[in-house]
Amino acid sequence: MQANQELVDLEHLRKIFSCAVDTKLQRIEADVVANLHEFLSKISVAADSRPQELEQYFQSYRIPDAPTQVSEQADFLQQQVVAHAVNISSPKFIGHMVSVLPSFVLPLAKIMTALNQNLVKTETSKSFTPLERQVVGMLHHLVYQRDESFYRQYLHSRQQAIGVFCSGGTIANITALWVARNKLLASRDGFAGVHVDGVTAALRHYGYRDLAMLVSQRGHYSLAKAADILGIGRKMLISVATDRHDSICSKDLRAKIKALRAQRVAIVALIGIAGTTETGGVDDLNAMAAIANDNGCHFHVDAAWGGAALFSVRHRQLLAGIAAADSVVIDAHKQLYTPIGAGVLLCKNPTSLDYICQQANYIIRTGSRDLGRHTLEGSRAGIALLVHSTLHILGQRSFELLINSTIATAKQFAELIIASQHFELITAPTLNILTYRYHPQPRYPLTLAAQRAINRLTTDMQRRQRSAGESFVSRTTLALQGHQEPVVVFRVVIANPLTTLSHLREVLDEQVEIAASLLADSGCDLYDYR
Amino acid sequence: MQANQELVDLEHLRKIFSCAVDTKLQRIEADVVANLHEFLSKISVAADSRPQELEQYFQSYRIPDAPTQVSEQADFLQQQVVAHAVNISSPKFIGHMVSVLPSFVLPLAKIMTALNQNLVKTETSKSFTPLERQVVGMLHHLVYQRDESFYRQYLHSRQQAIGVFCSGGTIANITALWVARNKLLASRDGFAGVHVDGVTAALRHYGYRDLAMLVSQRGHYSLAKAADILGIGRKMLISVATDRHDSICSKDLRAKIKALRAQRVAIVALIGIAGTTETGGVDDLNAMAAIANDNGCHFHVDAAWGGAALFSVRHRQLLAGIAAADSVVIDAHKQLYTPIGAGVLLCKNPTSLDYICQQANYIIRTGSRDLGRHTLEGSRAGIALLVHSTLHILGQRSFELLINSTIATAKQFAELIIASQHFELITAPTLNILTYRYHPQPRYPLTLAAQRAINRLTTDMQRRQRSAGESFVSRTTLALQGHQEPVVVFRVVIANPLTTLSHLREVLDEQVEIAASLLADSGCDLYDYR
Repeated sequence: MQANQELVDLEHLRKIFSCAVDTKLQRIEADVVANLHEFLSKISVAADSRPQELEQYFQSYRIPDAPTQVSEQADFLQQQVVAHAVNISSPKFIGHMVSVLPSFVLPLAKIMTALNQNLVKTETSKSFTPLERQVVGMLHHLVYQRDESFYRQYLHSRQQAIGVFCSGGTIANITALWVARNKLLASRDGFAGVHVDGVTAALRHYGYRDLAMLVSQRGHYSLAKAADILGIGRKMLISVATDRHDSICSKDLRAKIKALRAQRVAIVALIGIAGTTETGGVDDLNAMAAIANDNGCHFHVDAAWGGAALFSVRHRQLLAGIAAADSVVIDAHKQLYTPIGAGVLLCKNPTSLDYICQQANYIIRTGSRDLGRHTLEGSRAGIALLVHSTLHILGQRSFELLINSTIATAKQFAELIIASQHFELITAPTLNILTYRYHPQPRYPLTLAAQRAINRLTTDMQRRQRSAGESFVSRTTLALQGHQEPVVVFRVVIANPLTTLSHLREVLDEQVEIAASLLADSGCDLYDYR
Repeated sequence: MQANQELVDLEHLRKIFSCAVDTKLQRIEADVVANLHEFLSKISVAADSRPQELEQYFQSYRIPDAPTQVSEQADFLQQQVVAHAVNISSPKFIGHMVSVLPSFVLPLAKIMTALNQNLVKTETSKSFTPLERQVVGMLHHLVYQRDESFYRQYLHSRQQAIGVFCSGGTIANITALWVARNKLLASRDGFAGVHVDGVTAALRHYGYRDLAMLVSQRGHYSLAKAADILGIGRKMLISVATDRHDSICSKDLRAKIKALRAQRVAIVALIGIAGTTETGGVDDLNAMAAIANDNGCHFHVDAAWGGAALFSVRHRQLLAGIAAADSVVIDAHKQLYTPIGAGVLLCKNPTSLDYICQQANYIIRTGSRDLGRHTLEGSRAGIALLVHSTLHILGQRSFELLINSTIATAKQFAELIIASQHFELITAPTLNILTYRYHPQPRYPLTLAAQRAINRLTTDMQRRQRSAGESFVSRTTLALQGHQEPVVVFRVVIANPLTTLSHLREVLDEQVEIAASLLADSGCDLYDYR
């Protein structure tokens, strides 16, 4: 490049980084907002574009040499990205745990984006540091209900943390189990601890043959990742049976712990679930806490989804015992209605997070307020600002209404399914999640071939409904008592307060049509579909 | 709550979730934007508020019962959060690796926030999935320069991934080393692999006594986290000496590998650094690649900061050899000028990420396009949209200008320091990072007491300058050849293209004043300060 041209171009570039008011950008923003508004106002979930078609717009692997106009890029994003995104705000998007957002989030998110604070260190997040600690404290109080003096001591402690923000529930779960492993195999008697010497040396020192964690068969797959990355091994995430309420079977849990201990396998953690991803089932946390206590194990509760039930006088007893957990995960980006990127790990004991404490010369110094001392992640955005805003603008009572209302809707939907001649309810909603399948006039017992035929039909129905884009339910495969074969089911998550029974009726009506059409195309009966 | 009142409140709540145009919100947004604009336009970095004062606004640990007006919350955020945040857009904020943002990011970020897509699965991120894969491909090509047929095969492969987005460099580094560990201890001869059986069983099967990773003494602290969480142990992250250019010493590296192997310690990875966090030094990646090849080790390069030098014809030879790395990390939220939350891991071999492949019934199915199959995180936001936008709107040539210009500014600043009678340059800028200290008329050799006195003064100077809030440089402590004691230094990171030499002169002038004032207050000479 010519030196002169470089200077001219650099001057132009500097303007892009300066903070001057730019009317052209303002026009582009207005245009973007109008386009988003139009997209999000639709009832339908997605355009019926196929993945292969979309990929053609994203083929170039070369970073373009020359600049693109902002308006041109905005047009591209509107036409190829927004138009073919998934409208998770649709009241008929009832398939996954992604959240519709309250309307005030978008303007307030500008503060987070524009300031671009890095929460790893106070030097890059001054006021955001106490704000994030306050939000952690509020959620800690929601779970643990400790007294004034506790929070006075720990809310802004320079030594300890009672919880941390993470990018999501997966990192939060992994962090909790990292704490549990390091606590179990901590330094003692001249041994430096697993964090320093590694897993093999730790087992040798402690005289254990192996490590294990236990969770019901409905545990989230992030727990298997945790077992893998922590060096425990996926095999040693021991799966425990569930009862007919989809809650962990205490008897099986006790038996498995006993068998493990007999083989000198140390238990890193028992993991309770408050709202399983697949069915919304809740474990008996009191019973698990007692078992953990009897065995001196870390008790972790994955309440990423169901933690929000604590807002409700009507439903919080489902989670009774949660305050006995050593650690609890709640995802703010699920039922706290904030954008993705906000998982929270809460610890009963303020010393727990010391087991993974970091330091570095240039950053996160000991005795500082730096939040990065206790996180798995390094740089982190100030999304706590949006959780703070949601907690304040909605307030406890609105969260209670929201959770009550979505659970009520799920229960009404379950009744609708039960009353229908076309569908069979598979798991009833404990929280706001249920599963069902298309199965007119069930004739049990089913042959293996018939079970497989229904599974195939359910799979095809879900795919076709998803492709059509009018509505969206997800599907999963459940191992269930009384069924020889794993059962493929439609999985419904009700979290959008705008979802009404009439939307749900439309989803069912569409499925009846899809089933008829698939059966007609195949020329088969339900029980020998395809 | 009364049932009737509940219905009324719920109706009100539903409005908050509906997508209707809300003029009150629009006014609040305009207000928020004007406030942000005023804050970001300032040259000064931060108000001189003390942390203890700020904490008083974030004391309540109870989630408020009743709702707060959006306008009231917005006012609170403006007065207590924005006003006391760190203005990292200031040209005099030259202390950390957080990024000033181009002006087009804010309007385009609205698309990301409003759509709230979850990249874990195509069902919640339809068009965002190929978009993210394209961005991964572009950065892969920047590093590895593979040919057309390679990208045609792998860019949108349903089987494999050539890279993944992560929340940041830390998770990206951890993911890379997780891959390396699982690859080293993979399944074979009836052994199921470390991911299934855990670290201890794997070492037993392979006949290794222990595991280790090697990196220069300037390695980022995320690597110690990786050694801890992966079950390797922090002690087994072996620190290698650096030469006078702050680049890893090949001789020491070879010697340490040899010693480890003699003790049956398996090498999980050699880690090269392209832009150390503290000094910006770059390892000789060609030499490291050769050593890794000789020893059959995974070669990982942490180019979180320095990867952007690949944009520059003038500077990219610094990173020669990077294409031989098995994995490379680049942070888009550093010198690719996107908001925090965008780290990228790139893998030379498309099968590498298979070693950490996930699946679950309800999500990320095998053979699907779901991006969650190869990530440590679960739910992830669509920040790739902003990287896509930055790469297109700026283009390769602008990135080249930016990196050339910030490195040039750093070199000019180094000359200014060398020419000054007050300061001593400690590490010269290879990239756009340098370190220095206040040290008029150095009289070497220094007594131990004198060295410590200068360290104390440097620490106090940095703190006072930070508190005053006019400008910000960070500080770190370096172990350096020729110095008995670790040396406390000012650390400067030039990444804001608006930072000029005159800003840098002002930073130095302020430091001269601070030093004079601290020395006067203490009544001591520099060499016996405090």
